[in-house]
This record gives sequence, C-alpha cells and structure tokens, in this order.
Amino acid sequence: MSKIGVLIGPKFEDVEYTKPSQAFKDAGHELMHIGFKEGQVVEGKEEKTKVKIEKSAEDISTDDYDAIFIPGGCSPDKLRENESIVNFTKEFVESSKPVFAICHAPQLLITAKVIEGRNIAGWKSIIVDIENAGGNYVDKEVVEDGNIISSRGPDDIHAFIQRALKKLE
Amino acid sequence: MSKIGVLIGPKFEDVEYTKPSQAFKDAGHELMHIGFKEGQVVEGKEEKTKVKIEKSAEDISTDDYDAIFIPGGCSPDKLRENESIVNFTKEFVESSKPVFAICHAPQLLITAKVIEGRNIAGWKSIIVDIENAGGNYVDKEVVEDGNIISSRGPDDIHAFIQRALKKLE
Repeated sequence: MSKIGVLIGPKFEDVEYTKPSQAFKDAGHELMHIGFKEGQVVEGKEEKTKVKIEKSAEDISTDDYDAIFIPGGCSPDKLRENESIVNFTKEFVESSKPVFAICHAPQLLITAKVIEGRNIAGWKSIIVDIENAGGNYVDKEVVEDGNIISSRGPDDIHAFIQRALKKLE
Repeated sequence: MSKIGVLIGPKFEDVEYTKPSQAFKDAGHELMHIGFKEGQVVEGKEEKTKVKIEKSAEDISTDDYDAIFIPGGCSPDKLRENESIVNFTKEFVESSKPVFAICHAPQLLITAKVIEGRNIAGWKSIIVDIENAGGNYVDKEVVEDGNIISSRGPDDIHAFIQRALKKLE
C-alpha cells in the first residue's frame, strides 16, 4: 500500500479530489493532505467540500511519500505561489515516483519546470501554457509518460483513477 | 472620449474591475462589457459584484473599440477557453490600440500569443507562464510597453488607473 501526498489548496475542483481520493482509500492507500499551513481547512469551489491540511509546505520531504496527487480547479494556481510547494513538486517529479495530475494541475508542474519534453493532458485553457513550457499536449482522457499520469478534467476521472491505481500496484 | 471594451467572465477580481471602471467612467469614457453571451450576468469572486454582458464574443470587432481592459481573478483563464475572445484579443493587441491588463489578465494574452518580446507585469503565480511565452516579466506596479499597460494585482490599481487614463488622453 502507498502513502500518497495530496497537494491541495483553496477552491479545488471538488470531484477531482473526492472521487480519486475515495478510490485510493478504498484500494487501501493512505492519503496525507499537504498545503499552505497545517490545520487550515480549504474548500472546494463548487460543492464546498472541506479538506483539512495535515502537513505544511515547509514540513514535507519527498522521502515521506510514495506518490503525489494534484487535483485541479483554482488550487494548483494558488499552490504555485508557494516556493516550498514548487520545490517539493520539482524534487518529487525528478525522483521518478508517481505523480497524478488532473485538469489545472499541470500549472504547478509548469512553475516547477518539470514538463519539458513530457506528454501531458490538462484543462483546455492551459494548453498554450503547457506547450510554451516545452510539454507535448495530448488530447486524451489519460496520458502516461514515465512517472507522470495526467488527465484533462472531470469527464476523465474514471480513466484517471484506473491508471493511477494500476501505477500503484 | 474613448470606448473601452471590458473583457470579463465569471469570478473576476472585484476591485480590479470596480475601481478602474469607475475611474474610466468618471473621466468620461464609455464601457462596453464583452463576454461569453449577451445578457449573461457574471459575478466577482470576492464581493459578488454583478456585471451584465452587453456583447457576445461572436459579435465583436476590433474597429468598435478604442481600448480594451482585462480585469484579473479567475476570469481571464475562463475567457481564454473561447476562441472568439482569443482571436479578438490577438487582433486588438496587434492593432496597436491600448490594452489594459492586470493580475491574471496576461493569461489571455498568452493564449492569444501576443506577448513575445514584450515587457509585462502580472500576478506572481503566472510569472513562469509569462516567461515561457517569451514575455519579459517586470516586477513593477505598472509596466508600459507599446500599447500594453500591465500591473501585478490589487495593490497596484492606483498606478494602473493613472497610467491607463494618461494613455487615453
């Protein structure tokens, strides 16, 4: 079973967090919620799902997690304002351990400068950002390139979950 | 007096719309609100300021406006999903008429592919996106490069307004 770090901030896309999280827990994996400040409660932008941050950005190490999961919505754009989260993301992607990124999540990967030459799916509004970062945008429900598994958005959640679970086997 | 097209969508940053808009109107300029659909009402993300869209994206021409103004927040990332708005933005920037962009507004300019080689200010989370698009990010309250006037965010509104009004003289 794996320990998954969930990188999450305010106004995440509810279903992109709730559905994969439930599936990961149902499969026996452990989730640890990483954000700006331990104890802070962040809310989803549609259904106001509440998530309590368990680890502050300043208190995280890549060694402590087997995989990371980045839900979309406005959360990734907020998270990338934080240097500790950006540095952690960069180290984690470079560690070759699994990274699950959906919708706007590639925004965090772009700021961490880790998508050059990688095949990536993501929300349509950020296609040009992905391409400008040297990534190869792929318009598919789920894209796997090395350790990065990515999807375009809410409609792709099922495929995203299945591929992520397979990666954790 | 100038006719200013305001490119605006859901969850704009209230003060980045309300303060410049009021200043433009006080100076005698006319505003026309451009968005996804005529008659739609969009709301600000903090104070729920309501704005009624007067012109649909499909019904706009660069000839009809003397300047465009793009408030920040989540609005620019939504607007850039619309091909008509992206094309209009591209044509307008290339027309050399004034473009006022604050906070997340450069996201729309990036998707319109018009910031290569330009000096641009914007919200800190999009600095890497600006640089990847070939723009030169400038960390100042207001930056003027040719027809583009840009600012970083809410704290820069006063300087942003002053420079924009001067450009319209």
